[in-house]
Amino acid sequence: MKIIITVLLSITAIAAPSKKPDVATLMAAAQSSDWRALDPENTLYLELAQGRVIIEMSPEFAPQHVANVKALAREKYWDGLAIVRVQDNYVVQWADPNTEKPDKKRAIKNAKANLPAEFDVALDPKLQFTALTDKDAYASETGFYNGFAAGRDKKTKKQWLLHCYGYVGAGRDNSPDSGGGAELYAVIGHAPRHLDRNVTLFGRVIQGIDLLSSLPRGKGKMGFYEKPEQNIPIRSIRVAADVPEKERTQLEILRTDTKLFKDLLEARRNRQEEWFHFRVGRIEACNVPVAVREKK
Amino acid sequence: MKIIITVLLSITAIAAPSKKPDVATLMAAAQSSDWRALDPENTLYLELAQGRVIIEMSPEFAPQHVANVKALAREKYWDGLAIVRVQDNYVVQWADPNTEKPDKKRAIKNAKANLPAEFDVALDPKLQFTALTDKDAYASETGFYNGFAAGRDKKTKKQWLLHCYGYVGAGRDNSPDSGGGAELYAVIGHAPRHLDRNVTLFGRVIQGIDLLSSLPRGKGKMGFYEKPEQNIPIRSIRVAADVPEKERTQLEILRTDTKLFKDLLEARRNRQEEWFHFRVGRIEACNVPVAVREKK
Repeated sequence: MKIIITVLLSITAIAAPSKKPDVATLMAAAQSSDWRALDPENTLYLELAQGRVIIEMSPEFAPQHVANVKALAREKYWDGLAIVRVQDNYVVQWADPNTEKPDKKRAIKNAKANLPAEFDVALDPKLQFTALTDKDAYASETGFYNGFAAGRDKKTKKQWLLHCYGYVGAGRDNSPDSGGGAELYAVIGHAPRHLDRNVTLFGRVIQGIDLLSSLPRGKGKMGFYEKPEQNIPIRSIRVAADVPEKERTQLEILRTDTKLFKDLLEARRNRQEEWFHFRVGRIEACNVPVAVREKK
Repeated sequence: MKIIITVLLSITAIAAPSKKPDVATLMAAAQSSDWRALDPENTLYLELAQGRVIIEMSPEFAPQHVANVKALAREKYWDGLAIVRVQDNYVVQWADPNTEKPDKKRAIKNAKANLPAEFDVALDPKLQFTALTDKDAYASETGFYNGFAAGRDKKTKKQWLLHCYGYVGAGRDNSPDSGGGAELYAVIGHAPRHLDRNVTLFGRVIQGIDLLSSLPRGKGKMGFYEKPEQNIPIRSIRVAADVPEKERTQLEILRTDTKLFKDLLEARRNRQEEWFHFRVGRIEACNVPVAVREKK
């Protein structure tokens, strides 16, 4: 038995490098069917002086929050508001700087001020979920649905988005139902997975997260800016469908329900590039980038 | 049986909030014996126009690299060199911008240009390792030694540092023994744990990582700055022991071999703060901050 194992291992060791493609080789062989378009109805443009931050929203995981964020964008709620908090290795948060001043704060017109929590939703067995076989520190099962990193629990029959780098959620107070989408945050550090199922995630930044992550850190408690002039003004937030087509950023996202994506997962579990000497054989959902490219 | 479980669960649900302390309560009760001093011989000051970045080094995990980095600092190798790469959600790297130009690059005098890899070291059972009981995506066991997040493998009898946010390593080319410490990097994004055991980590930033993580991202390949004038100049790197005492930053680090630290781990597994509604019961090594304070 021992000899057979040794022989098999030797064969694998010799044969593997030439047989298994690396990430770059796999990506170079991607077909147009491996990519999907963005739905402009579920895409947000956060416009800053620094540039455009593009957020893809997931109505499957947070239908009410996605609808309300769109309603807020459509009433131009955020225009002229600001990024008020940049906490290192944690989150960037944007909101009405006068939100604690009832006489000065911006009124919400048509959208809702508060929503029921959507920390998780009922597990939908019809979703094309690409499950990871790997261990995860926080969830019994993780994987990808339509480009989004998600967790599932077959016992409780729940599914939820993961707090990976760039993921976007709706801030709330202590009450679970105190969020609504007017105050939003994006993760700019190591995945704070302890927030999973504690706050509603509804999207992820697919382009421009570097514009948020390189902002000066706030020196106040929890990274809030201490002086109003430090706030980073928001020019506007728009639903891409409401922006003239020629002003839209035309992007495509790598599909995560394909053989190619599964091959990419395997190439990340066991990195084939010459630089790597130790192949760990494992991958973590928040360490899997989902490629974005300009539309061809 | 079912009734007993239900009753027990109910008691837990009612009793728990008042019985278990949260992180802030635990930290407020910390004693002076829960803190330790920094060893100035194993502390580096990276001086930028933006401020001082303080790195604690771990000779237990990378003795040759720590010794060589100190030798490089002592011959003032980095003075006037630069941060040349800032890749979003990955690393900041500093080096000689002329490293590819043999006639222009800075000579290494007393230190070594290359070192044998120290990707992992022999497991030392005498180290006071505070092991986590939680699952980890990448390692069979993780925990803390003297403030450093580390992995262990009792089968291969190896231990190594983890690529958590702020951890500092020595860049290398494809050969494992091509690093040496002249080109260094710090993690500024989600922990790239696939690098564990593939490159030598020797320290971690304990203050000032925000000065690195908020730098403009490089637009070149792998986040390198494209123009020399974009490079961020390094004023100097010094071993703290070589800096006059009154110019040193006097810090203390929370010990990780104490009952307090174990209690903190538990308080992070099951967050007691009112804001949290879902207690996941798990923690990941890279999601455990090790507190730093000014020396009292």
